[in-house]
Amino acid sequence: MLAPGSTIGILGGGQLGRMIALAAAEIGMKTHIYAPEAGSPAFEVARHHTIAAYDDEDALKRFASVVDVVTYEFENIPAQTAALITGLVPLRPGERALVTSQDRLAEKNFVASLGIRTAPFRAIDNLADLEAALEALGRPAVLKTRRFGYDGKGQIIIGPQDDPASALAQLQHAPAILEGFVPFVREVSVVAARSVDGEFRAYDVCENSHRNHILDVTRVPATLSSGAAAQALNATQAIAEALDHVGVLAVELFVIQTDPHADSDQESVLVNEIAPRVHNSGHWTAEGAQTSQFSQHVRAICGWPLGSTALMGSQVTMTNLIGNDIDQWPQIAAEPGARLHLYGKDKARPGRKMGHVTRVTPCV
Amino acid sequence: MLAPGSTIGILGGGQLGRMIALAAAEIGMKTHIYAPEAGSPAFEVARHHTIAAYDDEDALKRFASVVDVVTYEFENIPAQTAALITGLVPLRPGERALVTSQDRLAEKNFVASLGIRTAPFRAIDNLADLEAALEALGRPAVLKTRRFGYDGKGQIIIGPQDDPASALAQLQHAPAILEGFVPFVREVSVVAARSVDGEFRAYDVCENSHRNHILDVTRVPATLSSGAAAQALNATQAIAEALDHVGVLAVELFVIQTDPHADSDQESVLVNEIAPRVHNSGHWTAEGAQTSQFSQHVRAICGWPLGSTALMGSQVTMTNLIGNDIDQWPQIAAEPGARLHLYGKDKARPGRKMGHVTRVTPCV
Repeated sequence: MLAPGSTIGILGGGQLGRMIALAAAEIGMKTHIYAPEAGSPAFEVARHHTIAAYDDEDALKRFASVVDVVTYEFENIPAQTAALITGLVPLRPGERALVTSQDRLAEKNFVASLGIRTAPFRAIDNLADLEAALEALGRPAVLKTRRFGYDGKGQIIIGPQDDPASALAQLQHAPAILEGFVPFVREVSVVAARSVDGEFRAYDVCENSHRNHILDVTRVPATLSSGAAAQALNATQAIAEALDHVGVLAVELFVIQTDPHADSDQESVLVNEIAPRVHNSGHWTAEGAQTSQFSQHVRAICGWPLGSTALMGSQVTMTNLIGNDIDQWPQIAAEPGARLHLYGKDKARPGRKMGHVTRVTPCV
Repeated sequence: MLAPGSTIGILGGGQLGRMIALAAAEIGMKTHIYAPEAGSPAFEVARHHTIAAYDDEDALKRFASVVDVVTYEFENIPAQTAALITGLVPLRPGERALVTSQDRLAEKNFVASLGIRTAPFRAIDNLADLEAALEALGRPAVLKTRRFGYDGKGQIIIGPQDDPASALAQLQHAPAILEGFVPFVREVSVVAARSVDGEFRAYDVCENSHRNHILDVTRVPATLSSGAAAQALNATQAIAEALDHVGVLAVELFVIQTDPHADSDQESVLVNEIAPRVHNSGHWTAEGAQTSQFSQHVRAICGWPLGSTALMGSQVTMTNLIGNDIDQWPQIAAEPGARLHLYGKDKARPGRKMGHVTRVTPCV
């Protein structure tokens, strides 16, 4: 167990890094943020920061020499960077979680290897692959780059009339996968944590709705049959264990109805994506759970036992404030039960996550 | 209303300033800490800090010129400092709250002037005053310095056998008051906030127990008759309004039984002390209430409407970690429902507040 007063290094200076740093401060841990952008939101609340590129080996070595553990707020850490840090100081979650989750093909193969269902998928390296895959999986289908995709970036739907060659061109012929269409009725996620000792704790399943491919609202408890919830939780635990994951992870899942005419017990889940880190769909835990996902992550990476994930209210909703949504802050500030979180970003560009608001219905 | 991105100046760099800074960061406010001690705990989580004495006028002017509002974590701000800042930038809470609460005699007179009961008291400037006061109020009685007392410092009990002259000498003949003995059955406090617009919101009454004159445990809900709770809340509101208070304040009260043989409806309260700031007995609100006292204070001083003070659980306890109590951190870390707060202080001196732990019983 790292003692209070230890220093946590965080790769990435956005809102996730910022909220990890705030949670670290709560238990007396120091933080050192490493990010390439001057004025990163997380710098505001951390004692130390390094402004350098993620492949600057000298800066990374200096950073690793002044921290006790390193974590990250995003999964696109270069593999060489992860390897360099791992050689110097514990990287949590470790390289396996990173390497698996930063490539959609590796991730899907990994999940399938655990016997967990995903959308049907094929590796796509060229037009011939794509045409064969469309033949096998049908249309519509979704072409996604294997790397660097998030919030709908790097993906394109191929409908009955669309030209596969132009879809490949739009993704600049990057290595890709094709995913078959999943007629899902709902999207959910499981945010969970695994400790250094292998202890596993999950929060209540979250129900997510998206707007322009970006998370819009998370609701807890999710509308979900208990059987499907158990499937989702078991899949997440199997994934965390197989990755030897340490820290918080989130698994996004599709809910499908096995038989559309049957009742809700016929629901089933498919794994869509793994995020080896704190996740937007877990932001509600800061007020809605006994331990926030950020505190839980800090506990896990510091080798502490995990905290309680008990729900603190009868219902919780988390709504993202994207781009100009932030202009609503005075109205949200005037709503007594609303808990506003703003990330300290100066420019409200379209699609940029500026903050979120959590509403917990007290159960008393 | 100060917009997110504004800068809050905080006089004082201890744990209260630190927790105010963390709450400010949650809504995208920047903070600038002003404190004389290098390595103050609040520096860790604030973007800017100034290390200077509280009477360094040049440093205070520079500080005031780069912040949008100034608040403080302790009431012993020199009056000249408060006046200087008030001339440059809003000081919240204002000078009246400071001047009243930093002198026990002024505070008692102020409370009494509102028709609110206190312990009987007399001003003491010399031995003749003290002898007359002991005659009037009886023994035991408590001699307290008018200024700079906290956590039992600057006070001495005068029992039947004690020599008044030596009591005065022990307090170095500082201006003092004598307070008559109050046979209280319990100590409680009300933590509340008042906004720039005069809106008032109080948290549930807190029940406090002390160890060596330092707060040990706060429990909510308090064991208190509804009539006495209403008295406590009304007294706090009257005090906040008469001070034209902006921000959080805490009022400590004694609970007495009007008739020891009667049932609990015969309880009544006396005001013991006013703290014009966030207060140790309100730390539980970070997990136990919909808005923490720190967030509420930030809202109030930024001119925002107040947040909900609703209780988030069936029962909350907050236990201070004083001095070597911090050595229990591994056990507390292993207790799933316990929320540990550590202040980032390096030396665990006896009597030093190192952290606290909050336990909320979920009501689901």
